[in-house]
Amino acid sequence: MVQCIRRHIKHKVTIKSKYLGLAYENYNIFVTYILFHLKRFPTIVGNIMAQKPGIPKGTRDFNAAEVAKRSYIMETIKEQFKLFGFQPIETPSFENSETLMGKYGDEGDRLIFKILNSGEFLKKVSDEDYQSKSETVLTPKISEKALRYDLTVPFARFVVQHQNDIEFPFKRYQIQPVWRADRPQKGRFREFYQCDADVVGSKSLFQEVEFVQLYDAVFSALKLDGVTIKINNRKILSGIAEVIGAQDKLIDFTVALDKLDKIGEEKVKEEMRSKGISEEGITKLHPLFTLKGDFGDQVESLKSILSSSEIGLKGIEELEFINTAISTLQLKTAKLQLDVTLARGLNYYTGAIFEVSAPEGVKMGSIGGGGRYDDLTGIFGLKDMSGVGISFGLDRIYLVLEELNLFPDTITASTKVLFINFGEKEAMACLQAVTKLRQEGIKAELYPDAAKMKKQMNHANRRDIPFVVLVGEEELNSGVFTLKNMSSGEQHKVDFQALLDMLK
Amino acid sequence: MVQCIRRHIKHKVTIKSKYLGLAYENYNIFVTYILFHLKRFPTIVGNIMAQKPGIPKGTRDFNAAEVAKRSYIMETIKEQFKLFGFQPIETPSFENSETLMGKYGDEGDRLIFKILNSGEFLKKVSDEDYQSKSETVLTPKISEKALRYDLTVPFARFVVQHQNDIEFPFKRYQIQPVWRADRPQKGRFREFYQCDADVVGSKSLFQEVEFVQLYDAVFSALKLDGVTIKINNRKILSGIAEVIGAQDKLIDFTVALDKLDKIGEEKVKEEMRSKGISEEGITKLHPLFTLKGDFGDQVESLKSILSSSEIGLKGIEELEFINTAISTLQLKTAKLQLDVTLARGLNYYTGAIFEVSAPEGVKMGSIGGGGRYDDLTGIFGLKDMSGVGISFGLDRIYLVLEELNLFPDTITASTKVLFINFGEKEAMACLQAVTKLRQEGIKAELYPDAAKMKKQMNHANRRDIPFVVLVGEEELNSGVFTLKNMSSGEQHKVDFQALLDMLK
Repeated sequence: MVQCIRRHIKHKVTIKSKYLGLAYENYNIFVTYILFHLKRFPTIVGNIMAQKPGIPKGTRDFNAAEVAKRSYIMETIKEQFKLFGFQPIETPSFENSETLMGKYGDEGDRLIFKILNSGEFLKKVSDEDYQSKSETVLTPKISEKALRYDLTVPFARFVVQHQNDIEFPFKRYQIQPVWRADRPQKGRFREFYQCDADVVGSKSLFQEVEFVQLYDAVFSALKLDGVTIKINNRKILSGIAEVIGAQDKLIDFTVALDKLDKIGEEKVKEEMRSKGISEEGITKLHPLFTLKGDFGDQVESLKSILSSSEIGLKGIEELEFINTAISTLQLKTAKLQLDVTLARGLNYYTGAIFEVSAPEGVKMGSIGGGGRYDDLTGIFGLKDMSGVGISFGLDRIYLVLEELNLFPDTITASTKVLFINFGEKEAMACLQAVTKLRQEGIKAELYPDAAKMKKQMNHANRRDIPFVVLVGEEELNSGVFTLKNMSSGEQHKVDFQALLDMLK
Repeated sequence: MVQCIRRHIKHKVTIKSKYLGLAYENYNIFVTYILFHLKRFPTIVGNIMAQKPGIPKGTRDFNAAEVAKRSYIMETIKEQFKLFGFQPIETPSFENSETLMGKYGDEGDRLIFKILNSGEFLKKVSDEDYQSKSETVLTPKISEKALRYDLTVPFARFVVQHQNDIEFPFKRYQIQPVWRADRPQKGRFREFYQCDADVVGSKSLFQEVEFVQLYDAVFSALKLDGVTIKINNRKILSGIAEVIGAQDKLIDFTVALDKLDKIGEEKVKEEMRSKGISEEGITKLHPLFTLKGDFGDQVESLKSILSSSEIGLKGIEELEFINTAISTLQLKTAKLQLDVTLARGLNYYTGAIFEVSAPEGVKMGSIGGGGRYDDLTGIFGLKDMSGVGISFGLDRIYLVLEELNLFPDTITASTKVLFINFGEKEAMACLQAVTKLRQEGIKAELYPDAAKMKKQMNHANRRDIPFVVLVGEEELNSGVFTLKNMSSGEQHKVDFQALLDMLK
């Protein structure tokens, strides 16, 4: 305890001693003084004892079961990525600030975690800048690196930087954490993984077709049947805006339309009016609100609305190509659905827009999304590099699988057999058996201490280890193992070969 | 190009306009002015065109082959970790600064990457503190989080924080990146992965025995035969210091001894003299410099040197226990070697000390290390929690496997077959076959565009795809596939079943 307090105080004093004018080397005298008088300062002691270690808000520790479940999702996704010909890349956790800043809008810039320059970071700040005491002025002087905010911008940077080594079209996948200084709330974290697959260097619509298949393949592999892959096309949204004479209000218009599910037709119209969209335009939209029937029927209605818009008809043509291909190829468990209200980061997408929703009955936002963007790498000076990609929402998929009880039991299974430790001689014999079992691929452990039998059995129980082996003096002398099934309580005396066979 | 310049200038102007007294909204006028006069400022244009995206020094991008090789090492290690009963945990990339600061010495504190607080980070700085213009004063006010520096301190924090949910002894493994603001140099990076396995909550020496086995199992699984697992014991070092009357110079003494391999006996002695170790003491050390023979012989020499030191003899006893156990259990490909000069972060370890060196002939520092520390969690207030653990040096193992050509060819194999695209109709038929192949677990791709045949064949070649399938009009009509082996040039016309069989 005293040592703990000493450490704690040392930590505080390192800084405090500067104020007090104490030489750093002399803090020991100060610490000794404090320790001597501790009884007089019960609140200090209280504080120190109460000081429990924690983690920054919005971050998480993952225990073994959680890591296993997350790995199961990631490995399942990876397997499909590879089958579809995507190759993995990894980029650094932090990028030069100039790579990230200005790519996600003002709000995004604010949410990027900046890393303080190492060492004498104030040296680069002029007196004038320092006197401004302005975060906007100071930040770029004292911080030149920032944590990755998503995987798309680093990917674009990667493609441009390594363009001479890359064979296009380039299909890459990337599964890495990203960081955002968002206000943490239920289901929203400051550190979370993104799982992205993108193709750059081809405008072929077969890519979009394959991404629909990829979503289907991944969710089928996860046994998450019945997800809906919603699809739209930015060109259709542009076409509608054109038809109703609101080209300059494309964003206002789609933001309002996007809310149809949540606030209903009337409120959407109200919002459109408030944004200055004409009554005539809104009337023209009427068929949009009542789009019915299957994909084909909806497309026909859209064609009539968009008959006068070249770009709108182009969007419909793209949609039809994808839908026809998918009808021919057939999906395993997902369904493809047209959703004209789907917008998702409109500024970004130029063609197809995707979003995946969980099976009916599961309350959860989208569990995936993506689309086509015609100028991904333009921000870094490489033009004419069309891209299309999708993303999987790992945390939400986790929650859905948990809710529907879809995680296989096998993935969290850890050690299969624990050898009870009756003392050094017996333990040594056990460790020989444990070693051989491991070489046969069986997860086996020896309890390290000759603790009380009950304690060791409890250890097996608490860790859900299904078998224990007991080797006491008797077993040692006759060269056998007593294998106990922890759930049935059954016991068998067996030789090593039989033990191996039973555990395999 | 113009748009690229516009973006570039926008970025700079956002800040510059503050100086110039321009309203942010008016920067467009300014940009237009600059664009108009661009021809007069050739150096500006030059600068902009030369601006290539890069990554921060000391960080790395990994391409597909590198990711595959790194994954191979990590998966091989993980598999053994699991066989030995270790469970995975993951901790956040950043911790509260107070969790990390003061745990790695002054040099460590300097090398920790600090994260700037979000938003108005100067608000928490008092005028007085601000006027100090001192990094030491400002840092804790403007930064409350820091990137993980290693996996050991976060693990200790994890154990203390979750002590009520953890079943002890707790065997955990953790494979995650860490960050250090070290000066980058060959083989030393600012972001790199650590692979750690530790047990806390048991003092049993069987743990040390198992870690020797674990090293052997991992390197054998990686086919890296002939590594040397060097072992020492802190208690032996303490014993020697005691015997030569240099208890108070334990660190000086071991630092000097640690250099024996590099600088030789005479220089080591010189350094000891300069640190004030007596001539008599140095004479007593003589047998240390000439320890010969196998483990047993060396232990006997040590016993004679340490006969008067209780702690020294305890260290020898521990060494002997481990060596006897390992002799009985036998290692597969590694050898265990006593190295009395081995010290490694002496302040930390209290019992066994491990270090692994690559097979003879490979020039490389240690590829792994670890040891016993009796008070891991004490820094966070949880006492009496002895731990022992080892670590694998991923980057160095990578270099060694590369040098010895030990990466299996299979791990970098990507797509097995590319279907050539002869046009929409043919491509659609191909995509149906591709879909079925993927469902059978074969990595298959369709070239997305109906590009020139030569371009598509080159794509297959450059990506080392071993087979291509050609479906032209003829094949389409007769329902067959022309399968071409890219290395032999052989071609076969086959039906789907035969295609599947040949690719499997």
